[in-house]
Amino acid sequence: MNMTRTTTTVHSVPVAPTMGALRPLGLDEVTITGGFWGRRQEVNGTATLAHIGGWLEREGWLANFDLAASGGLPEGRRGREFSDSEVYKYLEAIAWEIGRRGAAGEATDELEARFRSVVARVAAAQGPDGYLNTRFGRPGQPARWSELEWGHELYCLGHLFQAAVARARTRPDASDGLVDVARRAADLVCEVFGEGGIETICGHAEVEVGLAELGRALDAPRYLEQARLFIERHGRGTLRAIEWGRSYFQDDVAVRDAEVLRGHAVRANYLAAGAADVAVESGDDELLHALDRQWDTTVERRTYVTGGQGSHHQDEAFGEDWELPTDRAYSETCAGVASMMFSWRLLLAQGDPRHADLIERTLFNVVETSPSTSGTAFYYANTLHQRRPGAEVDADTVSRRAESSLRAPWFEVSCCPPNVARTFASLAAYVATADAAGVQLHQYAPASIRTTLGDGREVALEVATEYPRSGSVRVTVLTDAAEPWTLSLRVPAWASGARLTVLDAGGAVVSHSTAGPGAATVERAFAAGDVVELSLPVEPRYTAPDPRVDAVRGCLVVERGPEVFALESVDLAGTPLAASDFADLRVDPAAGLREDADGGVGATIVDERTDARAEVPLVRYHDWAERGPSQMRVWLPVVGA
Amino acid sequence: MNMTRTTTTVHSVPVAPTMGALRPLGLDEVTITGGFWGRRQEVNGTATLAHIGGWLEREGWLANFDLAASGGLPEGRRGREFSDSEVYKYLEAIAWEIGRRGAAGEATDELEARFRSVVARVAAAQGPDGYLNTRFGRPGQPARWSELEWGHELYCLGHLFQAAVARARTRPDASDGLVDVARRAADLVCEVFGEGGIETICGHAEVEVGLAELGRALDAPRYLEQARLFIERHGRGTLRAIEWGRSYFQDDVAVRDAEVLRGHAVRANYLAAGAADVAVESGDDELLHALDRQWDTTVERRTYVTGGQGSHHQDEAFGEDWELPTDRAYSETCAGVASMMFSWRLLLAQGDPRHADLIERTLFNVVETSPSTSGTAFYYANTLHQRRPGAEVDADTVSRRAESSLRAPWFEVSCCPPNVARTFASLAAYVATADAAGVQLHQYAPASIRTTLGDGREVALEVATEYPRSGSVRVTVLTDAAEPWTLSLRVPAWASGARLTVLDAGGAVVSHSTAGPGAATVERAFAAGDVVELSLPVEPRYTAPDPRVDAVRGCLVVERGPEVFALESVDLAGTPLAASDFADLRVDPAAGLREDADGGVGATIVDERTDARAEVPLVRYHDWAERGPSQMRVWLPVVGA
Repeated sequence: MNMTRTTTTVHSVPVAPTMGALRPLGLDEVTITGGFWGRRQEVNGTATLAHIGGWLEREGWLANFDLAASGGLPEGRRGREFSDSEVYKYLEAIAWEIGRRGAAGEATDELEARFRSVVARVAAAQGPDGYLNTRFGRPGQPARWSELEWGHELYCLGHLFQAAVARARTRPDASDGLVDVARRAADLVCEVFGEGGIETICGHAEVEVGLAELGRALDAPRYLEQARLFIERHGRGTLRAIEWGRSYFQDDVAVRDAEVLRGHAVRANYLAAGAADVAVESGDDELLHALDRQWDTTVERRTYVTGGQGSHHQDEAFGEDWELPTDRAYSETCAGVASMMFSWRLLLAQGDPRHADLIERTLFNVVETSPSTSGTAFYYANTLHQRRPGAEVDADTVSRRAESSLRAPWFEVSCCPPNVARTFASLAAYVATADAAGVQLHQYAPASIRTTLGDGREVALEVATEYPRSGSVRVTVLTDAAEPWTLSLRVPAWASGARLTVLDAGGAVVSHSTAGPGAATVERAFAAGDVVELSLPVEPRYTAPDPRVDAVRGCLVVERGPEVFALESVDLAGTPLAASDFADLRVDPAAGLREDADGGVGATIVDERTDARAEVPLVRYHDWAERGPSQMRVWLPVVGA
Repeated sequence: MNMTRTTTTVHSVPVAPTMGALRPLGLDEVTITGGFWGRRQEVNGTATLAHIGGWLEREGWLANFDLAASGGLPEGRRGREFSDSEVYKYLEAIAWEIGRRGAAGEATDELEARFRSVVARVAAAQGPDGYLNTRFGRPGQPARWSELEWGHELYCLGHLFQAAVARARTRPDASDGLVDVARRAADLVCEVFGEGGIETICGHAEVEVGLAELGRALDAPRYLEQARLFIERHGRGTLRAIEWGRSYFQDDVAVRDAEVLRGHAVRANYLAAGAADVAVESGDDELLHALDRQWDTTVERRTYVTGGQGSHHQDEAFGEDWELPTDRAYSETCAGVASMMFSWRLLLAQGDPRHADLIERTLFNVVETSPSTSGTAFYYANTLHQRRPGAEVDADTVSRRAESSLRAPWFEVSCCPPNVARTFASLAAYVATADAAGVQLHQYAPASIRTTLGDGREVALEVATEYPRSGSVRVTVLTDAAEPWTLSLRVPAWASGARLTVLDAGGAVVSHSTAGPGAATVERAFAAGDVVELSLPVEPRYTAPDPRVDAVRGCLVVERGPEVFALESVDLAGTPLAASDFADLRVDPAAGLREDADGGVGATIVDERTDARAEVPLVRYHDWAERGPSQMRVWLPVVGA
């Protein structure tokens, strides 16, 4: 950690460390104004939120709170033991969406009313001592805290806390009561699980990251301390061993002693995110460095080219190093969200662009892959190889996990849809940061940015880009500065040969340079109208795997900018390969890659059995399975390999 | 089916079709007298049986029957819902072992006493109406037949029936009562599940194959008819859908309409074996051909090089075509046993040596891989790639499934140890068959064979071989024949360049020929002392995978005769590769393979990171993990691939 900071203003951010290299800019400072992510945010804020709300009612997961208040539990309860958490993530998503919209308006008023109505139902279910869970503690239900391995009680509260943080930071003066509900629950957690209390952990990490942020948001060191206690208790084997071993819930090794993320991929990343918060707030450099090391090893050895994590269906877990099967890739959507949370905290603490690289890769190729274009159907797991066309899914039916089908509207375990929704609603908070010296752009989208540097100077920027279709990112400075400050733009690791041009308000080139992967910086006493233009080479490219990944030996993947492409069988129709067995298809890299004006990519595909060949358009991985059942593969076997 | 046969004599065989191409020779006709399988049978009949009996007592699975008789259920019951079946497989194994030993003796008397004691305990638990299960039907237990998806009631009875068949065919005059117990239970099954009864199936196939054979053994067409009903009811969706779909228990598609084995690999093969029995007995050629087609596709596309089947840990199931991950190979031991059962029935029906080829491959590389040399520890799943040295297993502890450890003494789900035991005890029954024209040898082991041909002639043979260490199989005819008969010897598909020599009693060469894969035959009016010598080329060889198996692209496997070899990290000690990362190792096929006098094989291994190289001894796959924790891989990536 290389700086200490005292936050004075409440910004609309999911994570607000009091120390660290970079200060995140909030939804009050950054607005995504269109483009790829702007379109997704629109769909998310309308169709997806409405869809989730509808299913929460329909499945009775919201009604569970009403039953709790009216004494109708346990008889009438519906859903799995963690269904409360989906309601909290839904609240968090709405809170960010309201924050994102900024000014009031009819649609926002409607969302606000919806938010308050759900909060009221949740609040009515809370016990007088702050306890809140619809599944435990009543006559006929298991006792409170009696099933910590699988009960998810603290996990649910972690999501409640994150929802409260979102509300506190977007509508700090709201009187809906969510923050009070969270505070009372958090106080109870500290009483019950504090020093001398029940000295164990929850089987699904999440309360740590929730408590830590609630502590920051409410200036409550007690919550941060409780998060620290939970972090430190991992690895002591206080949970009962389960079939898949204690690594499943990271109770095998102390967080600071672990060498790599392991076990259940969502749990592992939520825990690491919470541990990063604790490390930063307590100045625990040893812990932070341990987490950084784990991140490195996990990204090198246990992460798919999409950014996806989790190789096992059985236990939704990481595999061993280099164990990255494509057809059995689990790559859970929520693990993608959780991985972003972990990476973002390391980025804020250390300022290393590699963490933003992984966030970008994961955003485009995991989190964006989950929802359909329409925002109303989702992948829970994200395979990299579909050998048999997946089944159609009825829009009216609850799915298991959509492991071998098209996207599904809802799941029995439906963690992913609201996780996607809260991430997209808060996406502007991952675009940029500031420090004393200037502003850093991490993700590229058309955006308006207005913030205050560490030294108090106001800075405003306008970002114009069609990224990722185009590699051109044009940043116009809207404010004059007497003294120089630094604008920093991330150059992704895949972008070799990036160029950076600075123009003055008259359009004259001030400087022109090439920029290697990392951060390209311009230090200048910017005048209003100055433009910094980053040109990233987004031509399609072949990428070879690490030779230690057995599952994709002899294969290449096609990428273009941050997007991974795939071969999808629907694109073979009308080509000489229409009748080919998908398993016989190979790519001929010697024939190059074709790029069309739209950013589309075509590769030369060969049937090794018949020698038929054709140039076939590839599909952006996040767009696959949008045109009905089909086969698909991300890694393409090379001719003759 | 090309012949009809009426069996007149009871032979000690697990399968006795009344029609088909080949008649199996029983333990009363074939004795394995030593060699590779003779050693295994000795260990199995002593150490393994004692081990299993000890654990069945220790875990209370035998005591469950005592509790059933004394009214101590459900309170005192221990073990999973299918634990009764392990007792039945144990009984079946003892029955075959007694049959294998033939003449009485102190050790056999002890086994016989043990058998009778266990049967008495089982019999005491049977209800007055024939119902027998320690988990269902009593006050405080689920009702009979109320949980057919997961209850395993009929599955358990299927194993009871197979045990009774083993007893009826090895000690037909025994008065222990096991056959009566089975008959009463089978009668109840027919009453309850016959036409107009509960028209559904068991979630785990096995009762079909058990009923069919009991019907054959007791000449009870009613049981065969009930087996037929169960077979026909598969695919009607009468079981409730489960998370993994109805294909898990083969209730998705009618057996005769399916194109390939799918779902749970043990269930699939037990079902196919039972369906083959039904097809043969009812002259249902359509069904038999459907099964044959399914076998072909399954072997081509869904079977590991070891013969192992089942690619998923999650549901212990087959994957899609070509989905054969090595590090996540499940390849359950019981699926190997079940696959042998299916193949054996097709072999008897059709006489195609390919079915015996798969049996051999599976025997050496799956069934023999499960038990330790000592016969007291087992693999449940048989991975083809161990990335991290597996954990040591306490000899006193029940394991989950030993998925990532050394062999374990016992499992919570302990189907595999007794399944291995019954298979090895009855192994002589898989060695040879007869038809009207002669005798067919399918598996090679030192053996004494004495049988009667279809035309009533007595034939006796002595097989001498050190197979698979040596490829020489020497068959001495012990009987004179006035008319010619045909001795047929299987030439495995891997054996190109096999040679067949016929010598007369004086040692003079009568004929000499080469023999391609399939069946090598000698038709001759054999005189006592005549010798037929088959010479199979067992030099080590590299085998390339089907290019559609993505998981092993760019890899080769080393085989020698029927045995698959593996690279095991313990063998790197003392070589220049001792410090190498196992993931960096490659094989250099251009350097050839070394074979030592003992049949051991060495390959040239290269560290692609350091360029270090060494000739390293490979381990027979079935012997791996016998020297402590180590890394292992069967498929070796090729240098530069």
